[in-house]
Amino acid sequence: MANYTIPKQEYFDRIAKFQANIKKAGLDACLVHGTEGDFANVRYLSEYWPTFEQAGVFVPAEGTPVLLIGPESLKYAQGRSVLPTISQMLNYRESAEPDYPGIPLETYPDVVKKAMGSKKLRKLGLVGTAVMTYPTLKALESQLPGVELIPAEDTFRPLRWYKSENELNCHRKAFKVAEKAVAAILNEMKPGMTEFQVIGIAQREIYANGGEYEGHSLYCFGGDRTSNGISRPTGAKIKKNEIIQLNIGARVGGYSSSIGLPVWFGKLPKEQLALVEFGLRAHKYTFELIKAGVEAGSIARKYEKWGIDQGWGDYMLYGPVHGLGIMETESPWIESTSKYKLKENMTYQIDTFFTGNGYGLRWERGCIVTKDGCELLSKKFMGIQKLD
Amino acid sequence: MANYTIPKQEYFDRIAKFQANIKKAGLDACLVHGTEGDFANVRYLSEYWPTFEQAGVFVPAEGTPVLLIGPESLKYAQGRSVLPTISQMLNYRESAEPDYPGIPLETYPDVVKKAMGSKKLRKLGLVGTAVMTYPTLKALESQLPGVELIPAEDTFRPLRWYKSENELNCHRKAFKVAEKAVAAILNEMKPGMTEFQVIGIAQREIYANGGEYEGHSLYCFGGDRTSNGISRPTGAKIKKNEIIQLNIGARVGGYSSSIGLPVWFGKLPKEQLALVEFGLRAHKYTFELIKAGVEAGSIARKYEKWGIDQGWGDYMLYGPVHGLGIMETESPWIESTSKYKLKENMTYQIDTFFTGNGYGLRWERGCIVTKDGCELLSKKFMGIQKLD
Repeated sequence: MANYTIPKQEYFDRIAKFQANIKKAGLDACLVHGTEGDFANVRYLSEYWPTFEQAGVFVPAEGTPVLLIGPESLKYAQGRSVLPTISQMLNYRESAEPDYPGIPLETYPDVVKKAMGSKKLRKLGLVGTAVMTYPTLKALESQLPGVELIPAEDTFRPLRWYKSENELNCHRKAFKVAEKAVAAILNEMKPGMTEFQVIGIAQREIYANGGEYEGHSLYCFGGDRTSNGISRPTGAKIKKNEIIQLNIGARVGGYSSSIGLPVWFGKLPKEQLALVEFGLRAHKYTFELIKAGVEAGSIARKYEKWGIDQGWGDYMLYGPVHGLGIMETESPWIESTSKYKLKENMTYQIDTFFTGNGYGLRWERGCIVTKDGCELLSKKFMGIQKLD
Repeated sequence: MANYTIPKQEYFDRIAKFQANIKKAGLDACLVHGTEGDFANVRYLSEYWPTFEQAGVFVPAEGTPVLLIGPESLKYAQGRSVLPTISQMLNYRESAEPDYPGIPLETYPDVVKKAMGSKKLRKLGLVGTAVMTYPTLKALESQLPGVELIPAEDTFRPLRWYKSENELNCHRKAFKVAEKAVAAILNEMKPGMTEFQVIGIAQREIYANGGEYEGHSLYCFGGDRTSNGISRPTGAKIKKNEIIQLNIGARVGGYSSSIGLPVWFGKLPKEQLALVEFGLRAHKYTFELIKAGVEAGSIARKYEKWGIDQGWGDYMLYGPVHGLGIMETESPWIESTSKYKLKENMTYQIDTFFTGNGYGLRWERGCIVTKDGCELLSKKFMGIQKLD
């Protein structure tokens, strides 16, 4: 079995690029944040993947990057982090907010000294602000008075957009694992099982086949809830004659996947079957729009116009494509307002969602942008799936 | 099968108690925050469980509580939330930060109006600050200028400490499900399997037996990593003659569980076996300390003194017991600095962790505080577990 991981050197290359951007932006350093729910920024720079606690990475324009962890994670971080310099800090503790008497903790001035020596910190960029929490913001204010805090996503986020061959291989494998999980569901799911039980089949297959975790909160739900843009499975039972929506994703070497499809037992009402079929056509139409050099917004606008022209405009909700990476949904989205151009080795989820009155469906799979179009990360499950 | 859920009325009772605390604290309202990683506060008040996006609940001292969600969650929230009044807001969007052109969104002044009518908001308490993020803090500052923002955990957190009979039943069931997952692992785990594959066995059983999700990020790891306070499984293979640490928890009706135990194949080095056996004695010793009326700090201090007296002080790290609820680790911890007294129907994880040089172990299970002691939420897996 190949080793689906990112080599150590690649982390240092990422940090070097990030440091160049920090310098170019006129900042002295950036503080990057990650949580258990969205750990992507921290894992991207250090391989460290927090659990229970939060984490950060302090990256100076010049000097030594420092991994910032909570009070309980020292040995775990020492064993996992590619960055050897680590600080344990109270503001990254778990949300139960214990005191940890007797555990020695550091503050941001300690971190600045480790990272920058005697150099002065005046302008600090903040990265991962979407998940950066109150205790960290308060600790910055009180421990680093006079330091200017400047949101600086642009110094970092685009680094994650363009995938290396190692990253692409993790994605490819993550989709292979997801395919096995979907195949097992299609084979074993029966009316009368609960949605939770269907998810259990997928979880079993993800871990049995080399996944390290789910790629996102897995979906299986039926009936009215298929009209939810996002949702969670429940204890409701799988029924005949209605759409059952599956979205199943695995995580491999940090990188995510998801395959989405509507299936059913028995017979679908005519208008629901028509939407399933139209959805698949729209899904395939989107494949043709993706190509290096194309302006992202033009894809969304063409897709929307096409859907309206075909007579299904009222069933469309939002952007047909979103970024794929460590998170299953990440920047950049492809929306009508998106101004950037697609480049080779960007990775996307083609997320084709339609909603009717009391039902809906989503066709979804990943792709890699190529010079001539896109490489689909799964070519399976593109038929109309009546199960028995 | 019984229905392990919290009845609607119980949510409204919680909100009424919370509102009384808000009034008593001299606040006009509180804003409660939840994320995908720690959704507990929001679920406790509304049953809503965000996915991909963040969420909040705005609770006025008098008036209508409002559930606050991201742009993609409206139908999902309408179907799930016990609170009928819902606002869709940009600051709760997912971390990819899409624009969502065409989706109508509200701001905090809209929310204040829905919640409080024409009453004036001057003092707003913040709850769940441990997970409250930058976009929400910035939105508050810019949309509600002049409103005083006051951290107000104390108005809310203690409500979650004392469990109702419905909550206790969810916990009891969650432990039953965890027991089935542990039993399956003990039955099926073999040297040569990866740690991830062992987790897959547990995931399968959790969902097959009525769990709605893992209770926490599940643990299975061997060798040196058993000395990690917290950690994650890896692709490493299960080996003979070393400690394999399991921590397996299910979630039922929102409420969490975890059972932790060290096991091994073959023969453990003598000093490791001694620590396993001592750990189990320490675990059982802790059961005797827990009782309604006891000062929490005294439990931690007695436990620490006992461990030192027994000659194992160097192997102890931090607090022997932590709160259990919707999160597997939640407030309040039992640490040497804890000043509160235990009361009936508080729920705890007895988390007995020892670490040696290159190995460690954790015995863990939940309990309910009773008048005379504690009700263990699992009585299984308290033997020394050599597997074949």
